Amino acid sequence: MIENKPKNAIYAQSGGVTAVINASAAGVITAFRAQNEHIANLYAAQNGILGVLHEQLVNTNLISNEQLLKLRQTPGGIFKSCRYKLKNLLENRKEYERLIEVFSAYNIEYFFYNGGNDSADTCIKVAQIAAELNYPIKAIHIPKTIDNDLVITDNCPGFGSVAKYIATSIKEAGYDLASMALTSTKVFILEVMGRHAGWIAASGGLAANNANEAPHIILFPEVAFDEQLFLAKVQQVVATVGYCVVIAAEGVKDKNGKSISAAENSKDAFGHAQLGGVASVLAKMVGDKLGLKYHYAIADYLQRSARHIASKTDVEQAYCLGYAAINYALQGKNAIMPYIKRVSQQPYLWEIDYAPLSQIANQEKTMPLNYIAEDGFHITPICREYLQPLILGEDYPSYSAGLPDYLTLELAIESKKLPPFSK
Amino acid sequence: MIENKPKNAIYAQSGGVTAVINASAAGVITAFRAQNEHIANLYAAQNGILGVLHEQLVNTNLISNEQLLKLRQTPGGIFKSCRYKLKNLLENRKEYERLIEVFSAYNIEYFFYNGGNDSADTCIKVAQIAAELNYPIKAIHIPKTIDNDLVITDNCPGFGSVAKYIATSIKEAGYDLASMALTSTKVFILEVMGRHAGWIAASGGLAANNANEAPHIILFPEVAFDEQLFLAKVQQVVATVGYCVVIAAEGVKDKNGKSISAAENSKDAFGHAQLGGVASVLAKMVGDKLGLKYHYAIADYLQRSARHIASKTDVEQAYCLGYAAINYALQGKNAIMPYIKRVSQQPYLWEIDYAPLSQIANQEKTMPLNYIAEDGFHITPICREYLQPLILGEDYPSYSAGLPDYLTLELAIESKKLPPFSK
Repeated sequence: MIENKPKNAIYAQSGGVTAVINASAAGVITAFRAQNEHIANLYAAQNGILGVLHEQLVNTNLISNEQLLKLRQTPGGIFKSCRYKLKNLLENRKEYERLIEVFSAYNIEYFFYNGGNDSADTCIKVAQIAAELNYPIKAIHIPKTIDNDLVITDNCPGFGSVAKYIATSIKEAGYDLASMALTSTKVFILEVMGRHAGWIAASGGLAANNANEAPHIILFPEVAFDEQLFLAKVQQVVATVGYCVVIAAEGVKDKNGKSISAAENSKDAFGHAQLGGVASVLAKMVGDKLGLKYHYAIADYLQRSARHIASKTDVEQAYCLGYAAINYALQGKNAIMPYIKRVSQQPYLWEIDYAPLSQIANQEKTMPLNYIAEDGFHITPICREYLQPLILGEDYPSYSAGLPDYLTLELAIESKKLPPFSK
Repeated sequence: MIENKPKNAIYAQSGGVTAVINASAAGVITAFRAQNEHIANLYAAQNGILGVLHEQLVNTNLISNEQLLKLRQTPGGIFKSCRYKLKNLLENRKEYERLIEVFSAYNIEYFFYNGGNDSADTCIKVAQIAAELNYPIKAIHIPKTIDNDLVITDNCPGFGSVAKYIATSIKEAGYDLASMALTSTKVFILEVMGRHAGWIAASGGLAANNANEAPHIILFPEVAFDEQLFLAKVQQVVATVGYCVVIAAEGVKDKNGKSISAAENSKDAFGHAQLGGVASVLAKMVGDKLGLKYHYAIADYLQRSARHIASKTDVEQAYCLGYAAINYALQGKNAIMPYIKRVSQQPYLWEIDYAPLSQIANQEKTMPLNYIAEDGFHITPICREYLQPLILGEDYPSYSAGLPDYLTLELAIESKKLPPFSK
């Protein structure tokens, strides 16, 4: 290994993208440019960890300052992400050794992995194999996931913006229903992401300041779905309010833990499980059993890429976590994750701290039971108190010709230094 | 009839609501307040024409100036709308006579009806029956429809904001797909409104500046759907771009004019035709026949109520049309509609003019054939030129606690002057 000259760093994006993961990238790159040449080059891997394995690296010095500003306001993962979980060290030691081989070839001392639970696990394993092979690495995990299911951190970057999008959308849909209910649609269902945890569904609850306001019903994956109770609740809401607005998490399950979505239970001809379909199942139930006119929407990817209505709080936290990652790395921290600490609730104040990845990887933060109303159909005041600050503030992108002016980037890949990798 | 004292006016909202119909209402009310007491009271009917038939009228003087400002930024129909088409004069003379009876009881000389094709028809019939009964009315139609299918006017208020929402959303989804395509979803389909006309689907095309950018395929109701051609196009796009983003109008039909949506062909237990389902049909096709991982979203009501990303051009036009309606009424115009005239394309300049309703009612503006690309899968440059200015500018609502601060209004209904109406 080369000593006595500044080392390099790699940044990569992992898992499902968000509206603000690029804000974290912008934070990392900005902090890198601000530091005093302890890190010589900051490479970004294409397609997450795959880009490290296959040496698809770009030098972030090629990004202009103007592009860097635009990166902060761009949804998706600008360096491309991947759904690829490294197996454990016993099963696939070769991949981990390859990572170290690439690190060594590019003189990498700092590895920043920006993702959710799986990437936290990858990050800690990278630190472990490096230690075993006596390779000096600082592996830092930068949190990101709309699922909001990482432990220790107050919330996960990406979630606050989805929450703002869903709460805004359901509020707007409520205005539509209120206008039309007398002679048209009585029940509207919005299907949102969340297979195991109801965080996103819950966030829609912020739009309702009282029982008359949308959403009137929230269906969580955590609450066993009961058709009779659901239909009775819909009827009651329609009778009192005149219409009923429902948010349903895609992962709503019956009392046997089986998804109520027909589509999820079926696979396509190629064996892919196909998600989605909860809204249509619920809508048909409402139409068939109650005879009420219904409509439904499925937010799908729109919810996690809606940078146009990102939460300013979320953007700032994502940016600061990226920025902090560089500083922690320069302090010599390894196998850690910077996270958000809620300092005060009213006003909402937060700061960045860090925790060892061993306390974070392979843990899952589920919705506390006291966040869900007793009848299972809404959020509680304590849940609202937790969620409320996460959607605060707007952070509009700039526009060009009526559309958000998002960054497109075509960077040359570094010439390869190693033979191709095959498992 | 009472003469020699200022007369009153009624304003009502009709048909499917939009993100900007309340901006038209704000224009009407503001112009009313600015005029010199020619109109004594401006009433708003609740639930459109039903509120006139059943004497559900509120006095807009109860709306404060602060509320009026908020009205301009609020989606949905604040006075509530209705889906209720008056039959023709021969079939249901009683309803028309009741309208005149209510007009007379409230000393109404001015009737403003804010809606689409059906309400233009209602408006002209109101003028006809009033003339027949020698009742002095000025019936003015204020255009509104996301369908963009009214003739003469450059575009229809409500459409530009849907267009901006759809083009923004599909651009954002494109960034998501680009990030994930290597290891995850290859095909994304967004279902948008449009049963007969592809205006909304077309508007998504504004997001694509070249063949690599989303959306790659647009499916119009005007183009007979051919499964083989569609799948071949998807394959070709995935092969060249790496992923494929599709916009599908809900009204996509096969060569026999039959909807490709299974759901649309089925009715629920109560005989309601249920829309939606095009996206899931297309997605399943892509999964089953091409073996590509897919996702789909259904925008449904979110698209027409997304005031948070309204087009500034659209908001201003909606407001000015409402404002102009009062002025035309005071000039004694009857059975007319103020409309938008495109004065220049580059820069986009427009002005308000008016046309007789006889030239507008029961006409439908369909997509010109030269707006659709030769292969049927995208828009042409001339279509882009037409659509582009309609999404220009942002008109953000104010926010409170992280959510748009939309108006809620609880106004007392005027005490009734007539016996209840029954058909």
